[in-house]
Amino acid sequence: MPTYNGKTPEPVVNSTAKRIRETKYRHVFATHSQPRNSCLSHDAAKTPSFVGFRNLMILVLIVSNLRLMIENFRKYGVLICIHCHDYRRQDVVYGLILYLSVPCHLFIAYLIELAAASHAKLATARMKKAGEEHDTPAKQEQARRSFNITWRVVAFFHGINATLNLIIATSVVYSHIHHPGIGTLCELHAVIVWLKTCSYAFTNRDLRHAHLHPSQAQPLPDIYASCPYPRNINYKNLCYFWWAPTLIYQPVYPRTSHIRWGFVFRRLLELVGLSIVIWIASAQYAAPLLQNSLDKVLVLDFISIAERVMKLSTISVFCWLCGFFALFQSALNALAEVMRFGDREFYGDWWNVSSVRTYWTSWNKPVTNFMRRHIYSPLVGRGWHPAAAQITVFIISGILHELLVGVPTHNVLGVAFAGMMFQIPLIAITDMLQKWKGIDGKTAGNLIFWISFCLVGQPLAALLYFFAWQAKYGSVSKQWQESNALNNALHLQFLRR
Amino acid sequence: MPTYNGKTPEPVVNSTAKRIRETKYRHVFATHSQPRNSCLSHDAAKTPSFVGFRNLMILVLIVSNLRLMIENFRKYGVLICIHCHDYRRQDVVYGLILYLSVPCHLFIAYLIELAAASHAKLATARMKKAGEEHDTPAKQEQARRSFNITWRVVAFFHGINATLNLIIATSVVYSHIHHPGIGTLCELHAVIVWLKTCSYAFTNRDLRHAHLHPSQAQPLPDIYASCPYPRNINYKNLCYFWWAPTLIYQPVYPRTSHIRWGFVFRRLLELVGLSIVIWIASAQYAAPLLQNSLDKVLVLDFISIAERVMKLSTISVFCWLCGFFALFQSALNALAEVMRFGDREFYGDWWNVSSVRTYWTSWNKPVTNFMRRHIYSPLVGRGWHPAAAQITVFIISGILHELLVGVPTHNVLGVAFAGMMFQIPLIAITDMLQKWKGIDGKTAGNLIFWISFCLVGQPLAALLYFFAWQAKYGSVSKQWQESNALNNALHLQFLRR
Repeated sequence: MPTYNGKTPEPVVNSTAKRIRETKYRHVFATHSQPRNSCLSHDAAKTPSFVGFRNLMILVLIVSNLRLMIENFRKYGVLICIHCHDYRRQDVVYGLILYLSVPCHLFIAYLIELAAASHAKLATARMKKAGEEHDTPAKQEQARRSFNITWRVVAFFHGINATLNLIIATSVVYSHIHHPGIGTLCELHAVIVWLKTCSYAFTNRDLRHAHLHPSQAQPLPDIYASCPYPRNINYKNLCYFWWAPTLIYQPVYPRTSHIRWGFVFRRLLELVGLSIVIWIASAQYAAPLLQNSLDKVLVLDFISIAERVMKLSTISVFCWLCGFFALFQSALNALAEVMRFGDREFYGDWWNVSSVRTYWTSWNKPVTNFMRRHIYSPLVGRGWHPAAAQITVFIISGILHELLVGVPTHNVLGVAFAGMMFQIPLIAITDMLQKWKGIDGKTAGNLIFWISFCLVGQPLAALLYFFAWQAKYGSVSKQWQESNALNNALHLQFLRR
Repeated sequence: MPTYNGKTPEPVVNSTAKRIRETKYRHVFATHSQPRNSCLSHDAAKTPSFVGFRNLMILVLIVSNLRLMIENFRKYGVLICIHCHDYRRQDVVYGLILYLSVPCHLFIAYLIELAAASHAKLATARMKKAGEEHDTPAKQEQARRSFNITWRVVAFFHGINATLNLIIATSVVYSHIHHPGIGTLCELHAVIVWLKTCSYAFTNRDLRHAHLHPSQAQPLPDIYASCPYPRNINYKNLCYFWWAPTLIYQPVYPRTSHIRWGFVFRRLLELVGLSIVIWIASAQYAAPLLQNSLDKVLVLDFISIAERVMKLSTISVFCWLCGFFALFQSALNALAEVMRFGDREFYGDWWNVSSVRTYWTSWNKPVTNFMRRHIYSPLVGRGWHPAAAQITVFIISGILHELLVGVPTHNVLGVAFAGMMFQIPLIAITDMLQKWKGIDGKTAGNLIFWISFCLVGQPLAALLYFFAWQAKYGSVSKQWQESNALNNALHLQFLRR
């Protein structure tokens, strides 16, 4: 490119003519020199990237929800109030009692196992005395019978203990704890301890069997070698299992070398921050939305219900994601760090799932691991068809979901149970989609998962339980009536003066 | 896995004991066998994919906008009305006159070039007669002077012709066409023809120079060889340029072999479909939104204005994307196909741009090509600093934008011009971002582009021009007052009875 060469500028005409001689003709450049296609055409050589539209979507989502927040603030003002929480003294008392009493069932299970272990020690001693003759068929039969009789007794006590745990907690929550939040925490605690008790009993049963039949037994996992049965039946080992972030009992877990307190602190900070965010989202945005959906549900105005569910879905999916991160990433990682628990795989990348089946096996690994180890795998081992074993797992999971949602809200509607049962045909559909040709089965499956679970299932279920709660107790509508009556009374007094 | 082996089932206790001997211990499987990290932790070996969240975003966007559509319908009913279009007969008449008269300026340019070409032919003939002596310095000087005198005359007539085109169209639109839609179409047509006229004049000037100075001239593009100057100055060639989807004159363009009418039909179908979508979006969603923003702009309630702009931004970005696709993909491709025009690169993948500069050079290639060939490149060729040449291009582009927006809305506010000028500091910022380390400059630049252009710039500009229109004419507010007055009158009559 020519530039001024330091000389004083010549008169325009001459200098122009000169430069035109020096340079290419600027105005004749052949911009259109070859055939080319528009990049969005089907004829285009390659599809362009659309990563910019992802950024635009993020921005539009942020902006449109910011707008809704302004609108909400204009309409309702600040609804968040720390002192307004309406819970009864009785709820807190019963909640505390349950908090202290529920873990006792784990200790009762420990005592049962202690008795079984001492029985097993005696049996081993007897066998050693009798020498190595226990390999004869008659001895084997005798040993098996003896083991089975002991197991029946042990299983009976474990069954009574575990069932009592669930029954007591459930009936106290249903009858004596009005506040649904406190109730949910108590019920969740009871279910977790119940699952841990079951795992403790089942695992020790197999360990005991292996201990009693060393020659027939298949090798146990290498990791258990440092703490063989019955040495694992001790108080310290149980307490570790009590607090470990898992529902599966193992005599030995992979452990980390030390506690990183900075890591724990950051996770707890996340937990607190996210809890506040969820609280604000539900108090300021979800609560009025649920409140003004009630009359629509009452008259079954389906278009309005759809509109409310659509608005609720954004908030519910937001709260769900925050809650997932707070619980499975922040809380469980903090707990694992404090317990020096090595295996932190509490979830997989469930947000990418292309089949609803994969979602249920990856979003909540502690429960999945429990179901696989103590229900699915033993059932298949007994010769069940895998599909039947899977359906059994879903039925048990559905019952637990209903316990966790229906009991604290005092409305055992069966919606949570039905929701879990509804997963079975959905799994069939998304599994089928993967095999179809001509469509992007992965994306289609992922969309079905998001729509069914987060955009329809959750907000609809929340709305139904909220409506049932209001129909049964009507606390807020009563408050409204009372405040209206008060206003009217004041108004009358004012008019009389 | 063991399955039933066809034998009749044995009693439960025995068969269980047997199978336990046959299979692994199901309940002792070491689920937690090695240390693992949560996949969202910083410690995780690899970051998981988040493609599922992209799908969720798309769904949330669709659902939340569907909800807004239900809300809009509840509030306003159907606002779309085919017979209600309010345009004056005069607007249509003036529009038609402009539609027919504007292209005449292109034909006047043709006549000017025809005269110049015949003058050039005479000069060539004279030179041939004089033999090959025109290479002496004296002859060269004489030839250059003769060329420059001719060019000044030609440029004078071209200048008058092109300027008259813009002035006539602009003044007719501003003074006689009230309807902003018809006005915009007329002004756009005039600007396109103006650009084509300029390109025709500039290109032929360089071609003529090359023709007159064959020994000094640098080689012309190969593609022009099939139609050398002055053979290109003919009626058919001009008509092709008139309708070709480009603003750049070339004697020869890359062409396709035949017209695929199926392709044309599909593009036209897209064009019609998208036009209807844009019409519905603006009549049903944008119009009431703009309407009920007026009082907020009047009292300068900034939070409410921000809320309105946020709501408007989604619709405006939607209409913008549809409009872009309709014009640059569907319409121009259909026109190119009919004209057998080979170079279909009407746009680049501007949605991914990381710098505002790249956006302006890739979203509208016809104008970019014109600016680069006839303004930027000649200015740089004359020794201008590239930045100065760029700013000049933006100033000219700003003036054209103001003509296209300000004149048809009868409010030359300078907002469109200011918007173009505002791009210059934005370009500096996004260019700087690319060089920063520690941040993802590409994503940051892309976000700045979307925010500045689609989420703030466009809706704010639309709101300002709409407000200015209403302040000047107040057609809708008058209608409201009239309909209110009518209602009141009817009400009074009813009461009197």
